[in-house]
Amino acid sequence: MCKMMRGGDLIVLSGPSGVGKSTLVKKVRAFHPELEFSVSCTTRAMRPGEIDGKDYHFLDEEEFSRRSDSGAFLEEARIFRHRYGTLKSEVLERLRAGRSVLLDIDLQGAKQIRAVADADREIGAAAVFVMIVPPDLAALEKRLRERGSESDEQIALRLGAARRELAGFRTYDYLVVNDDLETAAADLDKILAVCRMRTAIVQGDPFV
Amino acid sequence: MCKMMRGGDLIVLSGPSGVGKSTLVKKVRAFHPELEFSVSCTTRAMRPGEIDGKDYHFLDEEEFSRRSDSGAFLEEARIFRHRYGTLKSEVLERLRAGRSVLLDIDLQGAKQIRAVADADREIGAAAVFVMIVPPDLAALEKRLRERGSESDEQIALRLGAARRELAGFRTYDYLVVNDDLETAAADLDKILAVCRMRTAIVQGDPFV
Repeated sequence: MCKMMRGGDLIVLSGPSGVGKSTLVKKVRAFHPELEFSVSCTTRAMRPGEIDGKDYHFLDEEEFSRRSDSGAFLEEARIFRHRYGTLKSEVLERLRAGRSVLLDIDLQGAKQIRAVADADREIGAAAVFVMIVPPDLAALEKRLRERGSESDEQIALRLGAARRELAGFRTYDYLVVNDDLETAAADLDKILAVCRMRTAIVQGDPFV
Repeated sequence: MCKMMRGGDLIVLSGPSGVGKSTLVKKVRAFHPELEFSVSCTTRAMRPGEIDGKDYHFLDEEEFSRRSDSGAFLEEARIFRHRYGTLKSEVLERLRAGRSVLLDIDLQGAKQIRAVADADREIGAAAVFVMIVPPDLAALEKRLRERGSESDEQIALRLGAARRELAGFRTYDYLVVNDDLETAAADLDKILAVCRMRTAIVQGDPFV
């Protein structure tokens, strides 16, 4: 039995639209129920049935700006009129208690977290960046067309966005190629297992 | 099918005496016959049956010094009267051709390679450092005693050496805890699989 004390992993996961990321996340969460999601902050209004602190931390524009200015966010984005952000404090609290966090975000968010990870030793030690990718762009186009639900114009827009996301692949540590879903899920599962073996998350010196 | 072009991995593997590293290496090589070993240089005399360029590159002291001074070695060591070293060129040639190399060395060698990896982008992208460790020092002592072949003094010497090796665990990226051999082999196998998913070894841009 190994008595090593370890901090949590911060798994930053991205992938372009149509690559099958949500299906993969669902599969992997079934194997890894210990993976936690952080509750994001947002300035949008609470919808019926939503719970503050569970679905989101609902903040007004002023409070969001105040936190943003003080560097409280690991990453943040404006989507249309509303702002969304992940609090550093919320993630760090979990990591320090040895709990792992999965952040499902886009390239822009991943780039922000990479910058924080480069500057902050604690986030840097925990963060692992994974991008789900198609075997190539032709395969992604084929997949988008097979859905049959979108116009050529919509598909072209999605492909353009995917190409921009994929161009940033070097922001990530690992690529999981989603050609066959079972293989991709097994690959992601291996990455999660190997993350636990990293010296970066070992606390103290277990060999004294 | 994924058409991504990838360079090889440079797997740097260490572990203190008694931890079961050679058994693990044997098991993993059976699964990964593609893993290559590099041929070391040495100044010791050729023994009957040995082949120059296959067992070792046999160099005289002067030639070894010349190469050492020119920075040709990835790592080198003096063991008693003789010198041993791994040529950068030999490793790089394989990595560039997409072939992975396993280097089975000690902490001192790993530290030298880490320094080269920090300075050389190509070695840095390929190198992954793995240490095989016991669950704790007590487990290692128990294992050494169970062999029954060594005196208390010899065991104390080995334990002291192991403790010094283990103190350098942060030189490595990953720890494989060898408590149960099958589990440790599976863990090492996962690390090797995940190494192939690293963006660091992806050549060019596969998504254009």
